Amino acid sequence: MSDRYLEDLRVGEKTLTGSVTIPEAEMLAFSRQFDPQPMHTDPNVEGGLIASGWHTAALVMRLVADARPLGNLPILGMGVDNLAWPQPVRPGDTIQVETEVLAIRPSKSQPTHGIVKLRSTARNQHGEVVYVVTPNCWVPRRPV
Amino acid sequence: MSDRYLEDLRVGEKTLTGSVTIPEAEMLAFSRQFDPQPMHTDPNVEGGLIASGWHTAALVMRLVADARPLGNLPILGMGVDNLAWPQPVRPGDTIQVETEVLAIRPSKSQPTHGIVKLRSTARNQHGEVVYVVTPNCWVPRRPV
Repeated sequence: MSDRYLEDLRVGEKTLTGSVTIPEAEMLAFSRQFDPQPMHTDPNVEGGLIASGWHTAALVMRLVADARPLGNLPILGMGVDNLAWPQPVRPGDTIQVETEVLAIRPSKSQPTHGIVKLRSTARNQHGEVVYVVTPNCWVPRRPV
Repeated sequence: MSDRYLEDLRVGEKTLTGSVTIPEAEMLAFSRQFDPQPMHTDPNVEGGLIASGWHTAALVMRLVADARPLGNLPILGMGVDNLAWPQPVRPGDTIQVETEVLAIRPSKSQPTHGIVKLRSTARNQHGEVVYVVTPNCWVPRRPV
């Protein structure tokens, strides 16, 4: 796969990633390290164990990185406009992500780069949206 | 420490967390699992290794969870308005977080709960801001 520069992207283009299934043991390991609260670390908690939202965020990063929406260019996030977890992720759930290009604009300060706003929507095996993230990425323009 | 309900919080109140130092090995382990791009996984990359932004996000979650701004109540994030990484996190950096209550409002749909907007600002050992996150949290009201 080749590099995909700012000029190669189109508003509205979509990329579907692979999928990942999240075993309870991985969920617990992440939560015990980074988000040690009962709803994330106690398999017998009332209401049932749910993944740390930051675990979901990290797994989605992995799926998107592997799907290479910029070809061989890295995905360098400058920030995120909005991030939501509308439904919990449960042990054994499988998630898959669709990434859409929402906006493309050249940088005002650096003529070599531009800013691409993406929206990544993660769904579980029932088609329910479990996570939405809208990052702004720093993308090089095609060298002249 | 006791539970801190919606009525116990005040706009403007601040919580300073403990700090964490991030060894290169941990940075690499996280990146290889969740964000396998050269700037996060290759110690000899041009410009120097930087942490995955999602690693920083997860470490900040841990610092905030340990600081217990809601006492014994869990911190349940519904979503995040904005998230930024203004400066890179480098191997061996030490980060510390200040959390401020920005807004408090009762839920319209559930009279037992309210929504608290927090802003967590992470700084490195030089006082530079490396990460800012503005979560909206679901907080119970004091039982009557």
